[in-house]
Amino acid sequence: MPQTILTLPTRGQGLYEFTDEAGSFVRDADFETGLLTVFVRHTSCSLLIQENADPDVRRDLDRFFRRLVPPSDDPSMRWIVHTQEGPDDMPAHIKAALTQVSIGIPVADGRIMLGTWQGLYLFEHRDRPHRREIVLHLGS
Amino acid sequence: MPQTILTLPTRGQGLYEFTDEAGSFVRDADFETGLLTVFVRHTSCSLLIQENADPDVRRDLDRFFRRLVPPSDDPSMRWIVHTQEGPDDMPAHIKAALTQVSIGIPVADGRIMLGTWQGLYLFEHRDRPHRREIVLHLGS
Amino acid sequence: MPQTILTLPTRGQGLYEFTDEAGSFVRDADFETGLLTVFVRHTSCSLLIQENADPDVRRDLDRFFRRLVPPSDDPSMRWIVHTQEGPDDMPAHIKAALTQVSIGIPVADGRIMLGTWQGLYLFEHRDRPHRREIVLHLGS
Repeated sequence: MPQTILTLPTRGQGLYEFTDEAGSFVRDADFETGLLTVFVRHTSCSLLIQENADPDVRRDLDRFFRRLVPPSDDPSMRWIVHTQEGPDDMPAHIKAALTQVSIGIPVADGRIMLGTWQGLYLFEHRDRPHRREIVLHLGS
Repeated sequence: MPQTILTLPTRGQGLYEFTDEAGSFVRDADFETGLLTVFVRHTSCSLLIQENADPDVRRDLDRFFRRLVPPSDDPSMRWIVHTQEGPDDMPAHIKAALTQVSIGIPVADGRIMLGTWQGLYLFEHRDRPHRREIVLHLGS
Repeated sequence: MPQTILTLPTRGQGLYEFTDEAGSFVRDADFETGLLTVFVRHTSCSLLIQENADPDVRRDLDRFFRRLVPPSDDPSMRWIVHTQEGPDDMPAHIKAALTQVSIGIPVADGRIMLGTWQGLYLFEHRDRPHRREIVLHLGS
């Protein structure tokens, strides 16, 4: 079963697209029909399939999550105990819990079956730069 | 690997069950043990496994998400930028991000292993009628 | 395809780890490369991959979800209709919808590819003790 680890560098909160990298992996594997599983090996970033057309959609998404889960130094978040790794750390775990850590996408005719407007994104929830590991696994 | 695209017509926000369609697909495929992957090819609707008994559960679920993510013409949502496709559009993307785009369900003895109270639903987040494509993929 | 049902007893809301049980299942199956799918057969508990280091992370996570979705006898939740199974029931369904019912984790060299800080948890949303069924399915 073809498998690889994709490393994505991030520079602060937001969505980072890797649709092309996933598509190349599937194309190179020369698999007619199958299932691509994407899995992120962290607990303070997550995965999202979202609209790849208007960039405002991604900005609004990011803004919604920042409003729903403000930094832990915000007065509304005083109940948070886990603060020693910075005000963006516990909110990062919460946002990761609210989104997805793994996504399965069927493959047909050697291509991942994303809809026309779907792009595959890493959703970074930390402020500082990180190198994020995403496992791509192509199975039957 | 058996694979099909199921098209579901929707008429406004809410949950649309397709447990039977998924069950038939698995039965017809004559697979003893395996994994059914359900994947929705859109970014303004999503997938949900939820209680199939009391319909009030589905109504309350729908209501919760409408309260958590009101239409973009609601005063509390004035920060939304992506509004040109209507007040239900950006909230639809947000609700899709908060739920799931793909679900994997193991198959045993030729049947999907849903629990007694579990039903499989498309969660429509747009107001206008749509035809939604769901990929059903049965693998090992 | 190796498959088993893991039964986890729960004693009220919170996160219950089963990383070791999943790891043993994969080790015993003697699979070099593959995909582990974890699926929970209920609609009032869910699955979460989260930090396995500081227990405060799990407590804060649990707290966040209780604040976002208070019991249905809370004044802010008066709109809930499905209340007959207790004030923790409908919030349980909502919290399950906001998290995950199935997670796919790639396997390499006979081990699940969790990151260093990732643990696998059942997220119980009901107050009373329950016995929860989790399907572990190892495929290609």
